[in-house]
Amino acid sequence: MKIVLSGTGNMGAQLGQNLIKKGFGIHQLYGRSADKTKKLAEKLGCDFTTNLDSIKKDGDLYIIAVSDKAIQKISEKLKLGNAVVVHTAGSVDMNILMGCSNNYGVIYPLQTISENTEISFSDIPVCIEANNECAMKTIKILANKLSNHVFQVDSEKRKFLHIAGVMVNNFTNFMYSLANELAEKKGFDFEILKPLILETANKVLKNDPKAVQTGPAIRNDVQTISSHINLLNDFPDHQKIYSFVTECMQQYYLKSK
Amino acid sequence: MKIVLSGTGNMGAQLGQNLIKKGFGIHQLYGRSADKTKKLAEKLGCDFTTNLDSIKKDGDLYIIAVSDKAIQKISEKLKLGNAVVVHTAGSVDMNILMGCSNNYGVIYPLQTISENTEISFSDIPVCIEANNECAMKTIKILANKLSNHVFQVDSEKRKFLHIAGVMVNNFTNFMYSLANELAEKKGFDFEILKPLILETANKVLKNDPKAVQTGPAIRNDVQTISSHINLLNDFPDHQKIYSFVTECMQQYYLKSK
Repeated sequence: MKIVLSGTGNMGAQLGQNLIKKGFGIHQLYGRSADKTKKLAEKLGCDFTTNLDSIKKDGDLYIIAVSDKAIQKISEKLKLGNAVVVHTAGSVDMNILMGCSNNYGVIYPLQTISENTEISFSDIPVCIEANNECAMKTIKILANKLSNHVFQVDSEKRKFLHIAGVMVNNFTNFMYSLANELAEKKGFDFEILKPLILETANKVLKNDPKAVQTGPAIRNDVQTISSHINLLNDFPDHQKIYSFVTECMQQYYLKSK
Repeated sequence: MKIVLSGTGNMGAQLGQNLIKKGFGIHQLYGRSADKTKKLAEKLGCDFTTNLDSIKKDGDLYIIAVSDKAIQKISEKLKLGNAVVVHTAGSVDMNILMGCSNNYGVIYPLQTISENTEISFSDIPVCIEANNECAMKTIKILANKLSNHVFQVDSEKRKFLHIAGVMVNNFTNFMYSLANELAEKKGFDFEILKPLILETANKVLKNDPKAVQTGPAIRNDVQTISSHINLLNDFPDHQKIYSFVTECMQQYYLKSK
């Protein structure tokens, strides 16, 4: 399968390297930055271009692994007939690719990908979608080689899945950051919190998160809550978040009782 | 060591059972509810009472493992001379026990404890504090047998540690709940999110959470953010949280740049 990969950011780099590991070859790499594109192309052992007009036309599968905004720009340039075109974004509708080819779809790996942290796609859930059976066939071949957890998810569901992903990753990591700052400024070791962080995550692998919720907010322990809010007087960011999230939790769990 | 345990809730029950496992005996159990106290006393193989005035006076160590409010009530009743008295609360000052004895302190296990989920205290960080060396000696013996991770933390630090614990446990679990509700209502499987939940928690074991933060908020990707907020029109609770936390994150990360 001749794969043309667009994108040299975290997703492009990690996806490219995982494709090579899984036995695929990259036919050509496209990127905007000459430096980054050349470097990644060397790693992937493939041809490259930084000119949208020089993207090869004889590929079988075009993977657009770029920022949401850039998908539009690239998709306007690609006129491919029957080659399968996919993007890898959580929040972008599949139909943005409608004008590129008769066969298009989405391959969305649901994982947080940071620069310089190598990841293996085998255990990452990959959500796929296609506009027809022919595109789906190609997409399935690639997705199933890449990951052991492939799910068919349509564009609307995928967008909500992405929102859920933001909540369980971006927002929770923000909470970790706030806690870490408290540790630094108040002189206790962030290390102490790690077993709690892990147990909290591990608990929802086996339980409905609602059923294992603990804490002053759901006990409606107003004394502890107001003592915490007072203690945070020197931490206005923390105080704002603490008050708001606590209030939301109280309302949320009251409703569901 | 003659241990008198007060409290038959999650903390009392789990702590009592772990003490037995670690070779301690319970001299007497105090609880408010006759049923609950009797049941737990049977498990612990010990004497029990539901009358504050009948708490035995010949104990060596009194552990008050009850709700924050109830600590006050019990501490007013206990007049013990030299026996060591401790409470197990994150947010309560050690000095609440000043009137009970000449020797007092705190044993605060930092972990989320849900009913019916058996936990082992060996891997739980236990924070200890004491008003003098004598109390500290007894508290250390117990804490070090109970857990492999014992930290000396004074009352003020402990309160901030408790706030940090609320953030990394209560608040993150709330995010899991919101995501789970989206999954149920939008027809995708919560299962898909589990690798992301675990990876997010695992990542901060080795990294500064600030350094691995990802997502539309810190990229200032206003297009994705506003698309997410629009999609959440039918989920006002989620929408409110999404908007607020995103805004806080944008401000927080902008400041620290």
